[in-house]
Amino acid sequence: MPELKFTMSMSLDGYVAGPNQGLENPLGEGGRALHEWAFATRTFSEMQGRPGGETGLDDDQARLWNENVGAVIMGRNMFGPVRGPWPEEAWNGWWGDEPPYHTPVFVLTHHPREPVEMQGGTIFHFVTDGIEAALERARDSAGGRDVAIGGGASTAQQYLRAGLVDRMRLHVVPVLLGGGERLFDGVDGVLADFECDELVSSPAVAHYTFQRRKST
Amino acid sequence: MPELKFTMSMSLDGYVAGPNQGLENPLGEGGRALHEWAFATRTFSEMQGRPGGETGLDDDQARLWNENVGAVIMGRNMFGPVRGPWPEEAWNGWWGDEPPYHTPVFVLTHHPREPVEMQGGTIFHFVTDGIEAALERARDSAGGRDVAIGGGASTAQQYLRAGLVDRMRLHVVPVLLGGGERLFDGVDGVLADFECDELVSSPAVAHYTFQRRKST
Repeated sequence: MPELKFTMSMSLDGYVAGPNQGLENPLGEGGRALHEWAFATRTFSEMQGRPGGETGLDDDQARLWNENVGAVIMGRNMFGPVRGPWPEEAWNGWWGDEPPYHTPVFVLTHHPREPVEMQGGTIFHFVTDGIEAALERARDSAGGRDVAIGGGASTAQQYLRAGLVDRMRLHVVPVLLGGGERLFDGVDGVLADFECDELVSSPAVAHYTFQRRKST
Repeated sequence: MPELKFTMSMSLDGYVAGPNQGLENPLGEGGRALHEWAFATRTFSEMQGRPGGETGLDDDQARLWNENVGAVIMGRNMFGPVRGPWPEEAWNGWWGDEPPYHTPVFVLTHHPREPVEMQGGTIFHFVTDGIEAALERARDSAGGRDVAIGGGASTAQQYLRAGLVDRMRLHVVPVLLGGGERLFDGVDGVLADFECDELVSSPAVAHYTFQRRKST
């Protein structure tokens, strides 16, 4: 059975982005520190079309990001800083002409927009009828593979509250951001449904994998 | 220079105790899961006067709890569930006749009480004039060794906000409690002063050690 899953880098005090996110600072203040471990990996270098990068435990974890992912869902904040109706001048995401998804990507928004086809197989679809509809369309287009929630925190929380998430992979970095966007806000009732099936660490980050308990 | 430090077991969603703490359930609902890793160690068995217990990485970390600790400070909630003026029938803590501290312990309270001497070297002092006064008395009685904050979250937060904490050792268990008492609430401004100097993990728990940055 294909899963709905997500992967996030989180500070030890629970933030997945720093404060004051915006066009100049998409990860928020201090948010880059959440991802330094990932930037160092060979997987990330390959995604950027660059040579080098470290192999080992952290790279093995980064390698799992796109494993068996057939479609992606993301919130509009993850897609870009644009608010309200889509402007004439197109915003096509943070990732340049060839985004690292290489699958259909369903962007949750209140404002309709025609799909945008990027290089490398990524197609952005804009979904205005809610998270269940987006999930249905993502599953239909995933070709039997998993659907990944690309972020951000608010989108992950909506799917958690709806009881639809099967797996979470949390990369917890030894950093205290002291502010920003918290992953585990407003989802207290649903977290008891998850159990950890793996915990490993490097000196740079601890990787926790949680699975939804199978209902009997 | 002796340090002020604390050690806490925390869920991955940031809780150091479950909801609804009380006499019957001092760790709160689900709170026991925060400490299972510790209960399994040889160090914990020795503290209980029992044989056995596991050695290895988690035990090495547990061994650090009392290392170089000359005095302990704790909040009244950590000391017991009693509220208001001290009753006739004495509450002498959760730990029986011989508490595991073996040092002076300074209990923060609004209600004066005479010191209580327990077996094994633990003496409970009751401090009514605030956290700085308690720290001063603890340092005076620590014989040049460190002062440990025994808990709970609220006491740790007060010392964090006052900028007095030098070191935190956080044992982060792969459990999502979904409610309870959060360690990192109301301390956002001060956490940027800390940096991690060690991260290690077993399959049961990741151990993060943070040190206050040295001011230049």
